[in-house]
Amino acid sequence: MGVENCVFCRIVAGEIPAEVVHRDEEVLAFQDLSPQAPVHILIIPRRHVPSLAELDDDDGDLAGRLLLVARQVARDQGVEANGFRLVANTGADGGQSVDHLHFHLLGGRSLGWPPG
Amino acid sequence: MGVENCVFCRIVAGEIPAEVVHRDEEVLAFQDLSPQAPVHILIIPRRHVPSLAELDDDDGDLAGRLLLVARQVARDQGVEANGFRLVANTGADGGQSVDHLHFHLLGGRSLGWPPG
Repeated sequence: MGVENCVFCRIVAGEIPAEVVHRDEEVLAFQDLSPQAPVHILIIPRRHVPSLAELDDDDGDLAGRLLLVARQVARDQGVEANGFRLVANTGADGGQSVDHLHFHLLGGRSLGWPPG
Repeated sequence: MGVENCVFCRIVAGEIPAEVVHRDEEVLAFQDLSPQAPVHILIIPRRHVPSLAELDDDDGDLAGRLLLVARQVARDQGVEANGFRLVANTGADGGQSVDHLHFHLLGGRSLGWPPG
């Protein structure tokens, strides 16, 4: 069950379309609608977790799954060799725009420093 | 056993000093020497994993631990309420500077977009 009015829960439920690049029992990955790099994919848990700050101690498996899927998506998108950046924003200072945990995977160009 | 000449393995081994903020059996967290925000902590596995791209399928537990420690460090550093950004760089395009998997946790200021 998704959280009402959460746009990512609605994508998980198929109520809002998205260009999905990976789907399994726990994780979904899809194209960011405002890409900041030639490759810009969002990786989210299907379950509604508001942010990294609200991971529970027993969410380690899910958290690990997100990173393993990110690795796989980088391979599938052809950015593993040249490199990529993985970013998770939490709260206002982090610039979190949707209150459903998500990782941004960016690649296909040289990413500058600092990261925002 | 660390990897020779890996600066992060040498920090894990205590051969190079670092301002450690978290230490457990699997994970170490310490101050970045070139902070890009008022709070800038690096979170690394004690074991030498070169990058996210080289996580094995059975490294999910370790990967999850890194994210749970990041959450805890954000709390300890007082940036959980206002927010923070977690960043992992892989390879040249990602701007990876040390070939030992690490997450940057940045907070204490508003992080801009795009993230590099």
